[in-house]
Amino acid sequence: MASNRNSSRHQTARHRLSVIAGHLQRPADSNAAVLAVECKAQEIRPTVKTGDRSEGRTVPRRRQEIMKWNGWGYSDSRFLFNKKGQAEFTGRRYRLSGMIIPNLKDWFEGTFGANLQHKTPATPILNSSAVQRPTLNEVFVEELKSTGIPFSYEAEDRVFRSHGHCLHEIFALREGKFGRLPDMVIWPNCHNDVVKIVELACKHNVCLIPYGGGTSVSSALECPPEETRSIVSLDTSQMNRILWIDEKNLTAHVESGIVGQDLERLLNESGYCTGHEPDSMEFSSLGGWVATRASGMKKNIYGNIEDLVVHIKMVTPRGVIEKSCQGPRMSMGPDIHHFILGSEGTLGVVTEVTMKIRPMPEYQKYGSVVFPSFEQGVACLREVARQRCAPASIRLMDNEQFKFGHALKPQVSSIFTSFLDGLKTFYITKFKGFDPNRLCVATLLFEGDRERVLQHEKQVYDIAAKFGGLAAGEDNGQRGYMLTFVIAYLRDFGMDYYVIGESFETSVPWDRVLDICRNVKARIIRECKDKGVQFPPLSTCRVTQMYDAGACVYFYFAFNYRGLSDPVHVYEQVERAAREEILANGGSLSHHHGVGKLRKEWMRETVSNVGVGMLKSVKDYVDPNNIFGNRNLL
Amino acid sequence: MASNRNSSRHQTARHRLSVIAGHLQRPADSNAAVLAVECKAQEIRPTVKTGDRSEGRTVPRRRQEIMKWNGWGYSDSRFLFNKKGQAEFTGRRYRLSGMIIPNLKDWFEGTFGANLQHKTPATPILNSSAVQRPTLNEVFVEELKSTGIPFSYEAEDRVFRSHGHCLHEIFALREGKFGRLPDMVIWPNCHNDVVKIVELACKHNVCLIPYGGGTSVSSALECPPEETRSIVSLDTSQMNRILWIDEKNLTAHVESGIVGQDLERLLNESGYCTGHEPDSMEFSSLGGWVATRASGMKKNIYGNIEDLVVHIKMVTPRGVIEKSCQGPRMSMGPDIHHFILGSEGTLGVVTEVTMKIRPMPEYQKYGSVVFPSFEQGVACLREVARQRCAPASIRLMDNEQFKFGHALKPQVSSIFTSFLDGLKTFYITKFKGFDPNRLCVATLLFEGDRERVLQHEKQVYDIAAKFGGLAAGEDNGQRGYMLTFVIAYLRDFGMDYYVIGESFETSVPWDRVLDICRNVKARIIRECKDKGVQFPPLSTCRVTQMYDAGACVYFYFAFNYRGLSDPVHVYEQVERAAREEILANGGSLSHHHGVGKLRKEWMRETVSNVGVGMLKSVKDYVDPNNIFGNRNLL
Repeated sequence: MASNRNSSRHQTARHRLSVIAGHLQRPADSNAAVLAVECKAQEIRPTVKTGDRSEGRTVPRRRQEIMKWNGWGYSDSRFLFNKKGQAEFTGRRYRLSGMIIPNLKDWFEGTFGANLQHKTPATPILNSSAVQRPTLNEVFVEELKSTGIPFSYEAEDRVFRSHGHCLHEIFALREGKFGRLPDMVIWPNCHNDVVKIVELACKHNVCLIPYGGGTSVSSALECPPEETRSIVSLDTSQMNRILWIDEKNLTAHVESGIVGQDLERLLNESGYCTGHEPDSMEFSSLGGWVATRASGMKKNIYGNIEDLVVHIKMVTPRGVIEKSCQGPRMSMGPDIHHFILGSEGTLGVVTEVTMKIRPMPEYQKYGSVVFPSFEQGVACLREVARQRCAPASIRLMDNEQFKFGHALKPQVSSIFTSFLDGLKTFYITKFKGFDPNRLCVATLLFEGDRERVLQHEKQVYDIAAKFGGLAAGEDNGQRGYMLTFVIAYLRDFGMDYYVIGESFETSVPWDRVLDICRNVKARIIRECKDKGVQFPPLSTCRVTQMYDAGACVYFYFAFNYRGLSDPVHVYEQVERAAREEILANGGSLSHHHGVGKLRKEWMRETVSNVGVGMLKSVKDYVDPNNIFGNRNLL
Repeated sequence: MASNRNSSRHQTARHRLSVIAGHLQRPADSNAAVLAVECKAQEIRPTVKTGDRSEGRTVPRRRQEIMKWNGWGYSDSRFLFNKKGQAEFTGRRYRLSGMIIPNLKDWFEGTFGANLQHKTPATPILNSSAVQRPTLNEVFVEELKSTGIPFSYEAEDRVFRSHGHCLHEIFALREGKFGRLPDMVIWPNCHNDVVKIVELACKHNVCLIPYGGGTSVSSALECPPEETRSIVSLDTSQMNRILWIDEKNLTAHVESGIVGQDLERLLNESGYCTGHEPDSMEFSSLGGWVATRASGMKKNIYGNIEDLVVHIKMVTPRGVIEKSCQGPRMSMGPDIHHFILGSEGTLGVVTEVTMKIRPMPEYQKYGSVVFPSFEQGVACLREVARQRCAPASIRLMDNEQFKFGHALKPQVSSIFTSFLDGLKTFYITKFKGFDPNRLCVATLLFEGDRERVLQHEKQVYDIAAKFGGLAAGEDNGQRGYMLTFVIAYLRDFGMDYYVIGESFETSVPWDRVLDICRNVKARIIRECKDKGVQFPPLSTCRVTQMYDAGACVYFYFAFNYRGLSDPVHVYEQVERAAREEILANGGSLSHHHGVGKLRKEWMRETVSNVGVGMLKSVKDYVDPNNIFGNRNLL
């Protein structure tokens, strides 16, 4: 019985990728209908064996080979206006790649009062000679050489690892400006390499900053400017193997440097998945997820990172910390995994993690629902949570995001599809009386056993109907999710035209969701006005996750900064005010992005003095010399 | 719409209690058929209002009024042999109360080689004059008096709070022996009282030991004999209000001294429940659950304590620790709730907790399945876990426990039911060919929406059938769960006849479940033999919880100690060997009982030196003078 399951699993695996595959280019002649997406991995990468380190891994040691040095993601992928003045997404990696996006220009100009004639492009080339020479700790380097662990102190490698993706970090890079950089980059290949590195760093008082995917949006990766010791960026990307898969216990033991897309692709080869799909999964690493308490799109099925991990191993200045047992749940005093989860690189390097895996879902179905208003959408989500029948993913965007989503529609080759779209719009607005300036959309994803998915779907749509919701088709749903991975490229595009922005998030009890959405959006608009922003900002939100006792709300905020002498400072003030507004409305400091250095100032207020004291006491014990000196959290 | 739901909820509430009600005496004429049990609370207690402190609360300040001083539970409830030599369960509180248990005598004598002529009764009365005079810290007492917080240093009050329910503790009490006792007992009424007490204790260097339900089985409540300071037992039982219920967010804010049965009963009045039903729920407290990382029978629906809590407030020597936000899930560094959960009274006193609540289930259905062997039963449970379709509760007992369960069957007034039982046995053993010495039973509980329960039931029974399982009726299932609350009384009964025993538990990955069951049971038998136990011990196990990556296994171990000069020492050696065997087989130190002082010796091995160091660093920061000096964990 087991072998039958395995071979059918293998068969399914060869023909099936999870949502991440949705960003791969579809063959030109394929049917546009979108039920379960079937894409082969081979089109981009060769089939890989578990245990093979470099084959089929996304992130090379020299990231600059494929990634941008001063913006998000792959170098070959970006939004731009082509010679005809049409917005286009370049490259070949994504569903959207190579497509014209006809409505983007008007939306962009209209929303931001931007003018395509006013361009402020980024510094195109990293000027290595402008990079300060590294401060090397000679004895450390000497001892390191004898370990054989690869390292570099080349300018490009250092610049690459000097930042995450906070606005101020990217803005500075685009201007060719560099702050404090790591002096060296080291690429351990395995846990034992990390042990050696940490020992040497302790011995020679070198500052270590673990670097996973580099996708932090909390200034976590910024090198503290006051740090006088040599800073070493410990890049985990080459420590990326799946060491074993345990089909009896449905677990996998994985090195922490593996990035999300590789982890899922490799597991898929065996018919499994973790189902952990943060929006950053193309580049973010397992170690980073543990360090920041990451959350994935399909957490309703697979859980957040704290639900997914069974065993964690971390190297600290005091030694290796790990439990001796792989039991599913224990009472052995306070759970030490929770001293590691969320430690944001301040205590050590996570090297290996045992995660739960699941058989890949048999069936996936997207969906979307249009609501007459955001209020009704939220009420529907709350009821879905109350009935504990949430799909794998359900996200509710406000009216502005609905319009934004519309602006990102690629040009369709089929007149028929345009016609259908038009029909749909007519039906929703004129026939059903939805106000196009109030309506909002929820995108849904169901997955699992086909029969149960269809039952489940019915239950959710029935609830939606009670709140005035109208099913709006699978394609709208799937497009919403497909856009997940290209949205991040938009900021670089905006920044070419004097538009800066960021997303930030919170978690909040159900009864405060509407207030927090309304108040924070209004506060953003007010603050921008006060600070001289000349065109009203984009201030929008979506509810992206639901729980029994509340939800995760994501805000997107962007504005045209022409006329401002210090746009980043204005941005930071507005963001800070928004966070104060969030806290005042009962929202948390963060649902999953973490604290980094960006939100340190609110730690005492949000976890209490005693809480901060506890965290400090752990830090002082584990790392008395602040070897892990990124200065996050405290 | 909301009010309709509320009135129907109220209606349901008046007629419905959760499983806990199963232990209440049924009216004599009621139908023996057992679908959803409908019992009224009023028969035992008056209807109570939320916020009212003393009405309808189980635990009086003077526990001795209703509870045994040297054994488990209520004074009026016990197993004994009546004048006719029949086993009987006394009192009026439980389903089993007042019933004859015809098979118990033979089973007991046969299993343990016990002889009812050989009786070793407990010391009946607590000899107050044998109790050492208290060591009072005079200035502390003086300042305490001015707070108005009730306290006592009477012998009975002190003895009551000097122990939990480890074998050695009860054995000693039965012999009228006392170890180190608390010198005083204090009964705070609210959080602010606790703040005052802790401040005074810090000021005057008094040792505080928080006391919730007193049900610890890890020696957590034992007073350290080397403690020379005055020991004060901080009894939370009178701090027991539900402060508010939030129907929008489905949460309730509750004082930590409330015990499980009161919490559920009070919430039921409003149509809600937490669904947290540890076997100790009659007496264990919310604060105790938080302190020990408790797990409840129906965690498959409601979650374990870490899933149930939204907000925790704890008073420590450093001050009050609490988050500022009630958000459902956050990333603000390591989760401070997890510094509190499992701290086992070493860091402070938990005073108030916000817990998730759920509407009471519309429908409940019990069930049972007989398997040809334990192996097949485990395989079935593993498949149920793999398919993620576990009922509210599913427990698999081994063959010995099946027989034991049979021994506990009350005498039925109906010949018809006996006949049915006989028919069933015939069908299962003769007709279906199950070996009565190999077969085992799983008891099940489903609850929720009626339609979905029936669907769910079918799915589970279909899986069971694949593993040779045979549905064996709801009454067997319900009896199994009903016995949950009377099992604990059996130990006192056993101890009357030279039989001592204990239960202990672990969590273990799925692929080690069978090994651990076999090896630990065998080890127990071997160790007993080596140590001169004359009659083979009862060594039995059950799988009581399931998770994605493993299960919780409970061992029951008891033996006849006649002929042994130091039976408790023998017991402790065997238990220790059993725990070594558990660890060697990949099991954890504890799934939910915790570490206390009983399992401290394995902490380094199981959470690593760095883990222990982290826990110590937190303790040293929060409580540098070891005010919370129960010396658990470290």
